[in-house]
Amino acid sequence: MGKTIAQKIFDAHSVDQPFGEVHVIRLDGVFCHEITTPTAICDLMEKNKDRVFDPSKIKAVIDHVTPAKDSKTAAQGKILRQWARRHGIDGFFDIGRNGVCHALFPEQGFVRPGHTIIMGDSHTCTYGAFGAFAAGVGTTDLEVGILKGVCALNYPSTIKVVLNGKLSPGVYAKDVILAVIAELGVNGATNRVIEFTGPCVDAMSMEARMTLCNMAIEAGGTCGICYPDKTTVAYLWEFIKGEYPSRQAALKAFKKLVSDPDADYDRVLEMDISDLSPRVTYGYKPDCVKPVAEMEGTPIDQVYIGSCTNGRLEDLRVAAKVLKGKKVHPSVRGIVSPATPTVFQAALEEGLIATFMAAGFCVTNPTCGACLGMSNGVLAPGEVCLSTTNRNFNGRMGKGGMVHLASPATAAAGAIAGCITNSKLYKKRAE
Amino acid sequence: MGKTIAQKIFDAHSVDQPFGEVHVIRLDGVFCHEITTPTAICDLMEKNKDRVFDPSKIKAVIDHVTPAKDSKTAAQGKILRQWARRHGIDGFFDIGRNGVCHALFPEQGFVRPGHTIIMGDSHTCTYGAFGAFAAGVGTTDLEVGILKGVCALNYPSTIKVVLNGKLSPGVYAKDVILAVIAELGVNGATNRVIEFTGPCVDAMSMEARMTLCNMAIEAGGTCGICYPDKTTVAYLWEFIKGEYPSRQAALKAFKKLVSDPDADYDRVLEMDISDLSPRVTYGYKPDCVKPVAEMEGTPIDQVYIGSCTNGRLEDLRVAAKVLKGKKVHPSVRGIVSPATPTVFQAALEEGLIATFMAAGFCVTNPTCGACLGMSNGVLAPGEVCLSTTNRNFNGRMGKGGMVHLASPATAAAGAIAGCITNSKLYKKRAE
Repeated sequence: MGKTIAQKIFDAHSVDQPFGEVHVIRLDGVFCHEITTPTAICDLMEKNKDRVFDPSKIKAVIDHVTPAKDSKTAAQGKILRQWARRHGIDGFFDIGRNGVCHALFPEQGFVRPGHTIIMGDSHTCTYGAFGAFAAGVGTTDLEVGILKGVCALNYPSTIKVVLNGKLSPGVYAKDVILAVIAELGVNGATNRVIEFTGPCVDAMSMEARMTLCNMAIEAGGTCGICYPDKTTVAYLWEFIKGEYPSRQAALKAFKKLVSDPDADYDRVLEMDISDLSPRVTYGYKPDCVKPVAEMEGTPIDQVYIGSCTNGRLEDLRVAAKVLKGKKVHPSVRGIVSPATPTVFQAALEEGLIATFMAAGFCVTNPTCGACLGMSNGVLAPGEVCLSTTNRNFNGRMGKGGMVHLASPATAAAGAIAGCITNSKLYKKRAE
Repeated sequence: MGKTIAQKIFDAHSVDQPFGEVHVIRLDGVFCHEITTPTAICDLMEKNKDRVFDPSKIKAVIDHVTPAKDSKTAAQGKILRQWARRHGIDGFFDIGRNGVCHALFPEQGFVRPGHTIIMGDSHTCTYGAFGAFAAGVGTTDLEVGILKGVCALNYPSTIKVVLNGKLSPGVYAKDVILAVIAELGVNGATNRVIEFTGPCVDAMSMEARMTLCNMAIEAGGTCGICYPDKTTVAYLWEFIKGEYPSRQAALKAFKKLVSDPDADYDRVLEMDISDLSPRVTYGYKPDCVKPVAEMEGTPIDQVYIGSCTNGRLEDLRVAAKVLKGKKVHPSVRGIVSPATPTVFQAALEEGLIATFMAAGFCVTNPTCGACLGMSNGVLAPGEVCLSTTNRNFNGRMGKGGMVHLASPATAAAGAIAGCITNSKLYKKRAE
């Protein structure tokens, strides 16, 4: 029987199969941030195991609460910083160079097709956009990864999501993934890889694919994954040009990372996204998804644009296009957090930052910010936020607050209207 | 006997003299922020006194922790926001339009010569730069101010600080005020107004005068105050042009706000600032001040540029000039918080934001930020920050942290060097 892309990556990295379907795989990357890694670091120190398997394969960033908001977060940053210095981890991104991990690390060329990556963060699945196997793990797995460069994981079974058709103008990867999660349900892909394929994915930018894979975990998926292709090569070329004689050669190598036609899938979900209209969540689970039109007029207090889901340059461009020459509604606070310093600087050069500010948005430094309710836009009880982030759990953005997930276009349109509404960018093709 | 400028303002606003030297004065402005005012609002509501004396004279802003970092600060913002809406306070600056109160309110033209202003904030004294009497007050005074538009205050006695000479290149208002505080001591001006006069003040921009008056409280002063002059008229002209037939007419009116030659002073301190070199604090009190040269080489972990003391455009220009084409030292985190959206946008247009980012600075949204240790750069125990803010109290920027106060030029030079050092802008004239 054929193999899926995830299984091929596993096979290439398996160093042991201690029992049943559990494989010990070699890791190409162990990524770290200041919220979950300090626990692992302190634990390793207590055990007299303050070592790292390979400092060049460990990357770390302070991104969740930055700059520090209190003594606790300052101490977390200090632990990570001192650990990085102590072990010569050059890929440590301190305040000023830091941004949202899942945007920053790909942007730095740290994620490659066929790579295996773990991180103490749910949305590690984002990296699958590059044809990597990347999974969020707990503290124990993270400690083992840091120390030994391996991780014990179940041999992957996969749900294949085939996205046919062509997106209507004003409909984005975020709308697609919300529609997919609605279809799968929040536990529909638990302990499975979600493989995204089809013409819609082929046509997507790397940024859009990252949005897609980023939310695999919201259906329970261990990892989202896309086949690497010429778009992947183009994105990575500046980092890999020393490794391949030509783009064509890189493409040829990457093309091996594809599921076999006779691979075994747990489920195949085919969707035609040509008729898809913009989507938004209601309620407190990411599979509570409706067409924006059905939520039209829902009042909002805050709009948040940013995060590992939708804080990249492409996202800011879309939002700025909607906001250009407009003003944020008086009852709405608009907050935008460019995901990385590179995104911020590019947005600055393109005039997007000026557009956001002229519209009345608060532009924060690159950070995870309001997404996880730990800084830069926590809601008060009873407040409602239209957000480009990935989780609408009860209290996620602040106790008693309500989050509606949507695309940057829908978020920007809401900021102007003061309520949930379709953006002018959306042209209905059919529904 | 003649009167001081502060006494003249009092005389013009006194509505009662209930006993001794206590006057009840009419207020031209009651300014509010989200940390101290919600307490007053809630207390007034409990007393069934949820009223305001004049919504046009009340200004409010969310500036200390913004956007909200947790449920508590979100709730504080919400209380202020709802209060402003309930009472039709148009001068409320919500997230996106908000910035550091003492930079924002003058920038909006809310502070005029001869005005009386109170606010629940220590650095309210900043507004004295315009020839206003402005004092930080506690909750009870704030409640009375909000409700009745009056405040009971002692008839002002004054310390006159005469600043003779001309500043050397690379020496700024911040260096001057640190030298003045060193001379007066942290309690040297308690319950008194500090009147700043002399050729050095005459030559200063409004921004520099605000830096000077901002730190009057650090010597215990109720208020700092400067005589309004043509610089004041120029700064305010766009706001007052409907009130005066010409700049000359405005100047003539303002010029009445000057102390009489035979006014009585508690103390007169004359200083020649021509020989003044850049200053920096050591220890935990603002009067622990040394020449930067004597602190040369002191290692630092963080540089913070911003606050009501030094977060204005002039300050960012000076810092950016030092940073242009340079990189922040690897052991230092650089953080800059432009004081207001207008400052941020001007800095963006002038390329200063790009300069800060290219140097490796983290650029935050406008906020009080790290200054008070409540967000955006709190120190971990043992960490040292070179900062353009106004207080170096033990733990101010985070428990166990150390703050050295300095000018934006000195702060920027430290960011590059990784330690306290004189900026290249400083040209020693004599010492």
